[in-house]
Amino acid sequence: MKASHAFAVELPDWCRTLADELPDRLPDATDRMRLAIDLSRRNVSAGTGGPFGAVVSSIADGRLIAIGVNRVEPETCSSAHAEIVALSLAQATLSTWNLADAAGAPMELATSCEPCAMCLGAIPWSGVQRVVCGATKRDAEITGFDEGERPGDWIGVLNRRGIDVQTEILQADAAEVLAEYRRTGARIYNP
Amino acid sequence: MKASHAFAVELPDWCRTLADELPDRLPDATDRMRLAIDLSRRNVSAGTGGPFGAVVSSIADGRLIAIGVNRVEPETCSSAHAEIVALSLAQATLSTWNLADAAGAPMELATSCEPCAMCLGAIPWSGVQRVVCGATKRDAEITGFDEGERPGDWIGVLNRRGIDVQTEILQADAAEVLAEYRRTGARIYNP
Repeated sequence: MKASHAFAVELPDWCRTLADELPDRLPDATDRMRLAIDLSRRNVSAGTGGPFGAVVSSIADGRLIAIGVNRVEPETCSSAHAEIVALSLAQATLSTWNLADAAGAPMELATSCEPCAMCLGAIPWSGVQRVVCGATKRDAEITGFDEGERPGDWIGVLNRRGIDVQTEILQADAAEVLAEYRRTGARIYNP
Repeated sequence: MKASHAFAVELPDWCRTLADELPDRLPDATDRMRLAIDLSRRNVSAGTGGPFGAVVSSIADGRLIAIGVNRVEPETCSSAHAEIVALSLAQATLSTWNLADAAGAPMELATSCEPCAMCLGAIPWSGVQRVVCGATKRDAEITGFDEGERPGDWIGVLNRRGIDVQTEILQADAAEVLAEYRRTGARIYNP
């Protein structure tokens, strides 16, 4: 058989430029959510993926470990959601598959939108110990995105694994990016 | 901030050699499961990841599109489960994030073990239209692996999205790889 032996997911160039300009730390959790939402907005305006952004950081001091944006269409990879991208880049940066074991742990994942069923399943495997969400599942779904079948008590699922969850942080700002995406008629890649 | 801009997941060298030796098609679905189980076994004996393998193929004629093995530890990437690796490589091979749109669709994912919560969530996004499983969630869990919180009716979740599911295909063979992994005292990377 002929087969690909590797796949890669890369951040777009503007993310690299942005990362270079970012401070090493964002000690205020709201600023980290603001960054996640900014990533979601810029990803749309640059045409480099869907309207989703995420940030991995150290909870104790806000040290920024990785940023991620949705790369499903540009990388032709259906699992390249912002959360998976940010978590994988954080793990690559820190050379561990388990962020709970990394220097600077415990770690936080801030995501511009509540995780879909896949990303929810990925969170416990990643080793993050806090998840902070902007827009809600409903905000995503009225935009036309499919969040999949999450357990009804998805927050409890994470809490029972020692993962703290905060929802609707800067929700209106995050939802506005999704609403704007819909207004401009951008294609919903996974309706 | 300093950050990684890309992550990559590669198959180990023995997979490349094996792929070169494989035929273009395996028309019998049982042979495709046998291959998935063989991948899980070889991945352990080669020391290149956890005891899980997966195969993406065309349902109509058994054309092999991609093979995958668990690469969590070697690639320090907690989402590099065999299913995600095989699906991502299939999408890379066919240059589409949606395998339902690819030449040769509908596509099948054969996996040596029932999908965990993350991989279950990933399956509808991938565009495959059939999932064939070897070992069960219970086989994985008695080995020490954590499958996460899947919806109780996980098969119905996929069926309602038009995805056919077959379980316990060559289950004893698939479970034996997991049991052997446990007997040899191999480390459970995500207990």
